[in-house]
Amino acid sequence: MHKAIATVSVSGALEEKLTAIAAAKFDGIEVFDSDLVASPLRPVEVARRCADLGLSIDLFQPLRDVEGVDPQQFPQTLRRVGRKLDVMEQLGATTLLACSNATPSAVGDADLSAEQLGAVGDLAQEHGFTVAFEALAWGTHINRVSHAWDLVRRVDHPSVALAVDTFHLLARGDDATALHGIPGDRIAFLQVADAPVLAMDVLQWSRHHRVFPGQGSFDLAPVVAAVVEAGYRGPLSLEIFSDVVREADPHVTALDAMRSLLHLEEELRHRWDGAAAGPDKPQRPRIELFDPPPAPSEVEPAFVEVATHGPDLDRLLAAMGFHVAGRHRTKPVTWWRNGGANVLLNGAGDLEDRWATAASRPSITGIGLAVDDVPAFAARRSALLWPGLPLRHGPGEAVIAGVDSPTGIHTFVTGRPGQADDWQRDFVAVADPTADGEEEPGAGWVGIDHVGYAVPFRLSEAEISFHRTLFGMLPGAVSEFTDPRGRVRSRVMRPPTGALRIVLNVTEGLATRAGGPAGINQVAFACPDVLRAARAMRAAGVGLLEVPDNYYDDLAARFDLPAARIAELRAEGVMYDRDERGEFLHVYTRRIAGAFYVEVLQRLGGYDGYGAANTPVRLAAQAAQVRDARPA
Amino acid sequence: MHKAIATVSVSGALEEKLTAIAAAKFDGIEVFDSDLVASPLRPVEVARRCADLGLSIDLFQPLRDVEGVDPQQFPQTLRRVGRKLDVMEQLGATTLLACSNATPSAVGDADLSAEQLGAVGDLAQEHGFTVAFEALAWGTHINRVSHAWDLVRRVDHPSVALAVDTFHLLARGDDATALHGIPGDRIAFLQVADAPVLAMDVLQWSRHHRVFPGQGSFDLAPVVAAVVEAGYRGPLSLEIFSDVVREADPHVTALDAMRSLLHLEEELRHRWDGAAAGPDKPQRPRIELFDPPPAPSEVEPAFVEVATHGPDLDRLLAAMGFHVAGRHRTKPVTWWRNGGANVLLNGAGDLEDRWATAASRPSITGIGLAVDDVPAFAARRSALLWPGLPLRHGPGEAVIAGVDSPTGIHTFVTGRPGQADDWQRDFVAVADPTADGEEEPGAGWVGIDHVGYAVPFRLSEAEISFHRTLFGMLPGAVSEFTDPRGRVRSRVMRPPTGALRIVLNVTEGLATRAGGPAGINQVAFACPDVLRAARAMRAAGVGLLEVPDNYYDDLAARFDLPAARIAELRAEGVMYDRDERGEFLHVYTRRIAGAFYVEVLQRLGGYDGYGAANTPVRLAAQAAQVRDARPA
Repeated sequence: MHKAIATVSVSGALEEKLTAIAAAKFDGIEVFDSDLVASPLRPVEVARRCADLGLSIDLFQPLRDVEGVDPQQFPQTLRRVGRKLDVMEQLGATTLLACSNATPSAVGDADLSAEQLGAVGDLAQEHGFTVAFEALAWGTHINRVSHAWDLVRRVDHPSVALAVDTFHLLARGDDATALHGIPGDRIAFLQVADAPVLAMDVLQWSRHHRVFPGQGSFDLAPVVAAVVEAGYRGPLSLEIFSDVVREADPHVTALDAMRSLLHLEEELRHRWDGAAAGPDKPQRPRIELFDPPPAPSEVEPAFVEVATHGPDLDRLLAAMGFHVAGRHRTKPVTWWRNGGANVLLNGAGDLEDRWATAASRPSITGIGLAVDDVPAFAARRSALLWPGLPLRHGPGEAVIAGVDSPTGIHTFVTGRPGQADDWQRDFVAVADPTADGEEEPGAGWVGIDHVGYAVPFRLSEAEISFHRTLFGMLPGAVSEFTDPRGRVRSRVMRPPTGALRIVLNVTEGLATRAGGPAGINQVAFACPDVLRAARAMRAAGVGLLEVPDNYYDDLAARFDLPAARIAELRAEGVMYDRDERGEFLHVYTRRIAGAFYVEVLQRLGGYDGYGAANTPVRLAAQAAQVRDARPA
Repeated sequence: MHKAIATVSVSGALEEKLTAIAAAKFDGIEVFDSDLVASPLRPVEVARRCADLGLSIDLFQPLRDVEGVDPQQFPQTLRRVGRKLDVMEQLGATTLLACSNATPSAVGDADLSAEQLGAVGDLAQEHGFTVAFEALAWGTHINRVSHAWDLVRRVDHPSVALAVDTFHLLARGDDATALHGIPGDRIAFLQVADAPVLAMDVLQWSRHHRVFPGQGSFDLAPVVAAVVEAGYRGPLSLEIFSDVVREADPHVTALDAMRSLLHLEEELRHRWDGAAAGPDKPQRPRIELFDPPPAPSEVEPAFVEVATHGPDLDRLLAAMGFHVAGRHRTKPVTWWRNGGANVLLNGAGDLEDRWATAASRPSITGIGLAVDDVPAFAARRSALLWPGLPLRHGPGEAVIAGVDSPTGIHTFVTGRPGQADDWQRDFVAVADPTADGEEEPGAGWVGIDHVGYAVPFRLSEAEISFHRTLFGMLPGAVSEFTDPRGRVRSRVMRPPTGALRIVLNVTEGLATRAGGPAGINQVAFACPDVLRAARAMRAAGVGLLEVPDNYYDDLAARFDLPAARIAELRAEGVMYDRDERGEFLHVYTRRIAGAFYVEVLQRLGGYDGYGAANTPVRLAAQAAQVRDARPA
């Protein structure tokens, strides 16, 4: 489809916007009048610049409140429209947007509105222009797509047609069925925008919190499909008003925007190709749609990568029950393993302990994910315009794909155990000196349960898009926590199938934004017996987080647990949660070199959460305890 | 009154909170259970610490959802209450807060709620405690103070009384009349919180956006007065949940909080002392209320102070029509004047031009305000716990009071022209070499119209409080603008009488927060003829902001102005606005040394705004033009 974006959807001066939009390979733009008025470029210069950049000007947005106007003032309105049509002529655009009147004084008289919109249509017709009329969700009288369509039919003018905006339509609780019976040739423009579900005034919601398709909570594909099925063949145009975008680099935003449209096209293709055959099966329209290799059907966590190491980190891993399982054939990478839990230490060899210098502190910089088809993933990554990491593969080594998330998390995509692209093939096995021969199956920990990292608010939508568009992962509900210095909002991304869980800790405040360590700061391993694991770690000298006694008193008030159970949890510093489906036990290490901490957890029954009720206590304890986890 | 604050209203760990609260001279606290549970201090240790700090524990908040509970689950609820009462016993508190049930499953049966709240009351009575029952504004069935009072009456238990929270009461649209007929001895606790008017879900509103009294939009004094007039003599306790406070320094917050209560007491005193005598005049209760000297009745702008100078700045001021009017008797301060507009250049003498080094760039660091009684202001400042600036006064010099606003603007308070404390007395007059003898009255500019400065979002409430509590200034409506790199929200503070206007430009985003210059970055002078002033400045080589041609085309569309009028505005780069009351013409200099800009404006008729419609164009032009305003 022809892909466009409104100039208001990226930041900067008009010239910067145009450059960024063209660089992201958009086909066209909507020109916002406010961007034009504030620009030193005259309309003809904008037209020339767009032509040079290969961008069509698909829409001009200069009109507000042109119907439902006090008849006394309407001549002044028409004068204003006339002036703007002159500008539009210079701009070389042919479709202009008119929104429903949203002023408190708007007159609620359908005949008057029809007469006035018709008069605007007459003026547009003189220039050969089309007026696309849109119902703002907060329009005084006309605020649903059905109202707008009623008016367009009533006007019955060859130069007046309907504009559909997914935000306005969905924000009012309508869905694709609201478009039934509207012929495609009467739809002059299609704008797409998503938004998170927020309980706030719809005007504020629309002006500040729109996001690109796939980043919010709206189901856009059915609406876009309905418009296309009706016969609309015009642009698919993004119109996003967002406080985040207003501060972002326009080049980053434009790329993010393009990816959202590519993903939307992919959804449309699935919709048309995937629907079961039958009399109701919608016919796939003859339009070009983005067609990359599909997202992996199943994603499993494979390993975490720690960027540096030294004897202290080795001692700590050993104290946590890990042992060296292998050494990379060609790179200075050591594979540490505890049952199904894998940690790769990637360093410059056996260096002296460098924890003292911040620059060389160990930090978890990457995560390995196992999928069925690595080359297909790499092709998908490239089609979605995500630059790949330049990974070197020695002859005969597994081909691993790499890509950085917007916040800079190295994401390595590997084959499944035993496959050609399995990362384990690149390691020379080392026998576990503590094991008597062969390692028992099922011994040790289960594996990685989840990894968590801090995401600055301004990157949160992009980070979600990354996981969603590349891996097909879906975001869960938002949980909110307060730590002693600010607010954290957590969101878990999970694939449709596979055990991977990635926790995005979105930090909004200055303090948390500035203070939190970069990279992955939390890795949680599942284990078959947390109480035993806690005892073993403590005996081996691992510094575990001290949980306040008051917490256990509160636990006794919240849950009807036997006193002996509470006593053993208290003795080991293990936290507890329960829901209708099961129980959850977890224990935390202190921070490791100030950079990250390890959680060891046990899920009993069908418990599927993360012990959110305990998070404020954990955050307070972490703030209080800065001593390191490494064994003495 | 006994002044208290909830531990949740300041940031940090419980121990830090207690220290900050005590340092701000509070009498008592509310202990939030979540703060206690996360604390390594056991309840008896908290009690001991509070005693040491001279803080009473006025309330404990451990209970949620204790009425309207499924009868099957109620034994578990009572067990939970029992555990918490044991904690409370150790804490030494005697009043506990119970909020109305806000779970979706809450049972809407008044008899059941009364029975259950009565059972909680029985348990409390065994300990000699009182349950204060509060209606949460989002309670499932009980969400207004009248609902809560109905339940308390129905329970009819000596240990169950009402809690009043101004947020919950006002957020539901109730006012003081909702308290009519409730006897003061049945009110067990009074919590005060303010909030800005926000169209959002009331739960989110309450949890994230409460502010201290006087910082929001609620009229708290009538509600507090009604509670006190009913006979309540308990604590006046702040309960603020705020994302801003969660990130702020607890010592700064606690001081801010105390000032808000002092100001609220002052309002109460005015209310009782100021009401006209008559049969309905409320009797002033016999309670101690804060009694500082009153805020100045009239505040006028006197001067702006620029912190450094050099020949370039001198040339620029001269090119703008200023001349040297005086030199300070003892300090290296030069007084520049253009009619009624005064600029004080405060530097280390006639230095070389140092604009090239950022550290010595000229910046507007202070504003002078004229009031009737400087010593009274100084006493008020001190009573409100604002530290004064250490200003040196030579013998015979005017005594000027100084105080820094939270964002660091030096605010000098001087007497009126001709009074003993008039700042002009400290200057030796210099004859204007360009004038033929005596200066004509009425010549030159009118004076300072407004000054504006950037306020980081986290300091915006404190900055408003500063002007409000010290000077009695009131905030106007919020205007929002988008500049090429983020969103700015403007709020104008004005005194009840007097020409002073201070524009607070609240910046929320990272870019604007990081990028904007500190200090006053905008000073607007009123002048009798902007077109003439613009011509004169341009002729003298002052760099004025270039307004895009597209702006004037848009002006012609927006307003029915004669073409000649638009042509002369365009020729001089003067911007224009109009409302029902009058017209507004204004012109901007380019930035001066990257630090600030000057606006010269003219108000025609009763126009009282700031040309907000032009702000996006001005911001874009400023972003585009970095060349300096200084004459070539």
